[in-house]
Amino acid sequence: MRKSVELYEIIRLIRPVHRRLARAVEAKLEGTGITVGMRAVMEVLEEAGAMSVPEIGRVLFLARQQIQLIVNALEEGELVERRPNPAHKRSALFVLSEQGATVFGEIRAKENDEIDAVCELFSEEDLNAAQKVLCTMLDHFAAFEDDPDRPQSLE
Amino acid sequence: MRKSVELYEIIRLIRPVHRRLARAVEAKLEGTGITVGMRAVMEVLEEAGAMSVPEIGRVLFLARQQIQLIVNALEEGELVERRPNPAHKRSALFVLSEQGATVFGEIRAKENDEIDAVCELFSEEDLNAAQKVLCTMLDHFAAFEDDPDRPQSLE
Repeated sequence: MRKSVELYEIIRLIRPVHRRLARAVEAKLEGTGITVGMRAVMEVLEEAGAMSVPEIGRVLFLARQQIQLIVNALEEGELVERRPNPAHKRSALFVLSEQGATVFGEIRAKENDEIDAVCELFSEEDLNAAQKVLCTMLDHFAAFEDDPDRPQSLE
Repeated sequence: MRKSVELYEIIRLIRPVHRRLARAVEAKLEGTGITVGMRAVMEVLEEAGAMSVPEIGRVLFLARQQIQLIVNALEEGELVERRPNPAHKRSALFVLSEQGATVFGEIRAKENDEIDAVCELFSEEDLNAAQKVLCTMLDHFAAFEDDPDRPQSLE
């Protein structure tokens, strides 16, 4: 019983923590011309390499149309480049451009300074346990994942 | 360094965990006529007793206008009742009605069944550590809280 109460408290913390983290990310992007959505897509491309718009949508659980708008903005800013898609001629693949990789690296470096400062407050065991609890909840509630074809906010 | 990488992984888990929990809450509300917003306001009133619309907004970090719409729906469904506000004649206080308390209790009982099942997967220490990490992040990023006068989504 005690454990359920504690887990419920943890669940209640997720929304406010999420909201503050999203604002913190947003604040670090101020003046860069990069939105939270652009940053999220750049992160996916940085990790996974060349991807089509529908593939990015599936990774981020966001609608194809939303991703298309973000990719358009990134392409306009010369932060991503097209590559031919051997599987689907009409759906290009996108990769970070050299400039995109630089910009994303700068954003991540700023974020990491803050993360380095915060993680001083935790032991390795704290972090392992927190990660375990969050991963397990993610698995447990997997059935409730968004339908990527139903438009969602990035937040 | 290892710790920063782990904390970054935890931060990246927050958005998907939040999203799935929000959908899970939504799914449990299906057929009750209660929205996620109504549930959130009922929870505040259940814990804190009589509150005005602006006070509820401050607790939930949501705009007064959004709370007003939710409170209107709750009042229409006879789930909340007005009480005179000794401090501000024009801003009534709201409390859960007897029916509201019953409906909210039923919602929470259904949620608790699921929470009881999930928390079997964790030790007391896991939960303590996860709560510590989330609370500390909430404090650390307190400066990035929403402005309750800038409309936000409940998610």
